[in-house]
Amino acid sequence: MIFMKPPSAFITENQDLIIPTEWDELHHEIELGVVIDKKCKNISSEEGLSNVGGYVLALDMTARKIQDELKKQAHPWLLAKGFDCSCPIGEFIPKENLSKVDNINLWLKVNGQMKQNGNTKDMIFSVGNLISYISKYITLEYGDLILTGTPSGVGPVKRGDQIEAGLKSDGVDYTMKFNVKS
Amino acid sequence: MIFMKPPSAFITENQDLIIPTEWDELHHEIELGVVIDKKCKNISSEEGLSNVGGYVLALDMTARKIQDELKKQAHPWLLAKGFDCSCPIGEFIPKENLSKVDNINLWLKVNGQMKQNGNTKDMIFSVGNLISYISKYITLEYGDLILTGTPSGVGPVKRGDQIEAGLKSDGVDYTMKFNVKS
Ligand SMILES: [Mg+2]
Ligand SMILES: [Mg+2]
Ligand SMILES: [Mg+2]
Repeated sequence: MIFMKPPSAFITENQDLIIPTEWDELHHEIELGVVIDKKCKNISSEEGLSNVGGYVLALDMTARKIQDELKKQAHPWLLAKGFDCSCPIGEFIPKENLSKVDNINLWLKVNGQMKQNGNTKDMIFSVGNLISYISKYITLEYGDLILTGTPSGVGPVKRGDQIEAGLKSDGVDYTMKFNVKS
Repeated sequence: MIFMKPPSAFITENQDLIIPTEWDELHHEIELGVVIDKKCKNISSEEGLSNVGGYVLALDMTARKIQDELKKQAHPWLLAKGFDCSCPIGEFIPKENLSKVDNINLWLKVNGQMKQNGNTKDMIFSVGNLISYISKYITLEYGDLILTGTPSGVGPVKRGDQIEAGLKSDGVDYTMKFNVKS
């Protein structure tokens, strides 16, 4: 199951997470983002990781009510997942710093309360599998970002909320923070 | 109803239209492509056209069986619409050459046989409406391409087929040709 977000979806930590005017809330989905570092096509699962330059913490912000409507109509998901600010990301993490990509703790708090707390070992597909699957159909390019799925606990944020999220693995520890605004 | 294709979807007339290995056919959808020439957000329908730099003939190549499967599961459409070669385009048409964007004849032939032959006056939404709707949620950027919907007559092409397509409007006449291969 794959979809795309446009470049205008990205925000970084110096920017606010702005909810589009007409909507009252968004759902948070904390995910490990995989950054591709070379053009590649038809990659095997085994070769998948050799096309990765690093990682980022990423939020797959989702307009859940819109997504549910679109699903009912069997329509594409872009509006619900690809709006401006729908992909907040943290700092670039070189791959050397995350050698155990299948054992990373991912967590997310809203206003200081833990909401999501999982591990990439529970991902349905490995990073290598994902790159292999996508690259069968879509040539991946330098700088492409692949989000990899979220642990349980997704839920709403509203204007005024603060999201803090992080990952921990084998001695490394990254965090990011976003204020939700209009 | 909006979806995205990645940059790797584009091909131009010097390239073959390659059907992904696992599939036996694709459906053709001839469409008018609208090229955005400035970053814009929250544009009114009336202002829509002032953000357009020109047009292209475009094919929204679609893996219809895959799309039907994805629809059944209420899944996103990227795989069916965003694979490599899914967006063949013709030469750039400056907007001055297409002053009557709501009265353009669009046609498509497969192996010399007319399959689609319609007019943009039958489009459900005007180009201004489309830009207004999308830009409410997604900031449009210089160079973004918006496909605008296809006339009736979509159908399959297989390896070995040739697609020819064109538009006519008020004295101008553009065509493009693609060979379907593996
Ligand atoms: Mg997600
Ligand atoms: Mg792009
Ligand atoms: Mg179409």
